Amino acid sequence: MIVDQLSTTFAALADPTRRAILARLTSGEATVTELAEPFAMSLPAVSKHLKVLERAGLIARGREAQWRPCRLDPAPLRDANEWLETYRQFWEESFDRLAEHLRKLRGEQEEQTNDDEE
Amino acid sequence: MIVDQLSTTFAALADPTRRAILARLTSGEATVTELAEPFAMSLPAVSKHLKVLERAGLIARGREAQWRPCRLDPAPLRDANEWLETYRQFWEESFDRLAEHLRKLRGEQEEQTNDDEE
Repeated sequence: MIVDQLSTTFAALADPTRRAILARLTSGEATVTELAEPFAMSLPAVSKHLKVLERAGLIARGREAQWRPCRLDPAPLRDANEWLETYRQFWEESFDRLAEHLRKLRGEQEEQTNDDEE
Repeated sequence: MIVDQLSTTFAALADPTRRAILARLTSGEATVTELAEPFAMSLPAVSKHLKVLERAGLIARGREAQWRPCRLDPAPLRDANEWLETYRQFWEESFDRLAEHLRKLRGEQEEQTNDDEE
């Protein structure tokens, strides 16, 4: 089965530890040891997550054999964002409908209050 | 293991058939039979995908026992988009760097061309 890039990106993002690793890399390059620190995870467990991120093209790793520092590669995030943006009108519409509903509800309540006061 | 909502959303999106189902639902409600048509898939296979989408809150299903039409619920897409937006500056920066690099490259080529013409 050929897995498309977008599926690989979303699958890589479907894990809180991997998302936390990406968040950490927004403040600069880091080694595996540095990345492992906040997670109370073994180095092999972190390395496994890094492999998933690297295969998805979300991180790139340096060539220095010992350190191999990781850095964020945001290109797949841009593509995932582009896909999601095609749905923007739908979540904005439902937000508008909710706002409209709340406005009506508030209007009715105010009328009710005015009726009570009369 | 408690799976967070964002992980559930991304996992549901990590499949081209499920993304195609969401795309189909942007043009309105559809029954399982209608959704199955373009995919040359069995109804049970499509139903399985619908269950994943429903659990992620990306679709809602009607209550009519026989038809149970599906409709898009875009709220989780909005939340996924919000998460991705926090990385926007990073992909825009790398795009700017690439554009700058190409500009320089073009400048050098033009200088080269001018040198050749002199």
